[in-house]
Amino acid sequence: MIQTDIPIFLASKSPRRKKLLRQIGLNFKVKAFDVEENFSVNDNPVKLVKKLAADKLEAAKNKIVNSIIITADTIVVRDKKIIGKPKDEKEAIKMLGLLSGNKHYVYTGFAVFNGVSGKTIIDYEKTCVKFRELSDDEITEYVETGQPLDKAGAYGIQEDYGAVFVERISGDYYNVVGLPLAKLYLRLKQVL
Amino acid sequence: MIQTDIPIFLASKSPRRKKLLRQIGLNFKVKAFDVEENFSVNDNPVKLVKKLAADKLEAAKNKIVNSIIITADTIVVRDKKIIGKPKDEKEAIKMLGLLSGNKHYVYTGFAVFNGVSGKTIIDYEKTCVKFRELSDDEITEYVETGQPLDKAGAYGIQEDYGAVFVERISGDYYNVVGLPLAKLYLRLKQVL
Repeated sequence: MIQTDIPIFLASKSPRRKKLLRQIGLNFKVKAFDVEENFSVNDNPVKLVKKLAADKLEAAKNKIVNSIIITADTIVVRDKKIIGKPKDEKEAIKMLGLLSGNKHYVYTGFAVFNGVSGKTIIDYEKTCVKFRELSDDEITEYVETGQPLDKAGAYGIQEDYGAVFVERISGDYYNVVGLPLAKLYLRLKQVL
Repeated sequence: MIQTDIPIFLASKSPRRKKLLRQIGLNFKVKAFDVEENFSVNDNPVKLVKKLAADKLEAAKNKIVNSIIITADTIVVRDKKIIGKPKDEKEAIKMLGLLSGNKHYVYTGFAVFNGVSGKTIIDYEKTCVKFRELSDDEITEYVETGQPLDKAGAYGIQEDYGAVFVERISGDYYNVVGLPLAKLYLRLKQVL
């Protein structure tokens, strides 16, 4: 388990990330900052998620001192195009239509920083997700619940009806939720 | 979504299964029965989990009428040997040592039964799980939390520290938790 006297901060607004860190017994506080997340659909996914995590870390470092800081960013990639969060219900329906019956990739970039030693690690994880074929009715019903609207790729895999769309995954499941727990845990140990 | 006027019963004591069915918006009640779960380590995993699910269904059918009944059973298989729930802390430590650094397979057999039409489907799902190399200290610390003691293979993947042991999975994540949500959902639609 992670044991340290240094305070730990999760710099993220995501309630899902908060829950994941609680699950592994980490003692931490949450402090989120607004960081602009600009990207173009053709950006390199690995470079992009690592850059977004690094940008979030820079914003947090100005406000949080002598602490461990964790930041993260998750994107969805289908057919080499980056898919962000849907603007509205219409866009959510379009996104789910693209994912239906196909494989896509979820990338989470994350940063861990020890503000006492100055040690930083920026890393990422990639998971392949295969959706089964969805009917138009299923997509519409799901979008009407409002659940997909704040999520990259317009679906949630945890605590969400979106789970029944996922036929199989290859890789770290928690990476799809928003934090690759196994890798993050190892990297946290490395900066301590 | 699953819509029916027929009452739905989950015949399982598992709090994890109850939570998974809630996640997909199913309206159901829980009624569990004691069924003997006998097996030998060399049993065929697919036949075994389907038989255990069928046995649980038979026990439930005597008590629940004119309803839809869901039953399930989950086992862990490592190196072609079936691993059940650990008897005590010592056995949990031994099981986690076997899983450390290796791949294993999780099988969940399930039954869905419509007590009005008489239609029954018995099916299963298989997921491959790869553990990273665990240190003896990590295993001991985890076992001391008590979390692995009521779980097949001596670990939990959801709402549990065991998540940081899992490097990657191939297949349905929820199958490892205790119910293959995507397949169960489709089979439920088929018996309605």
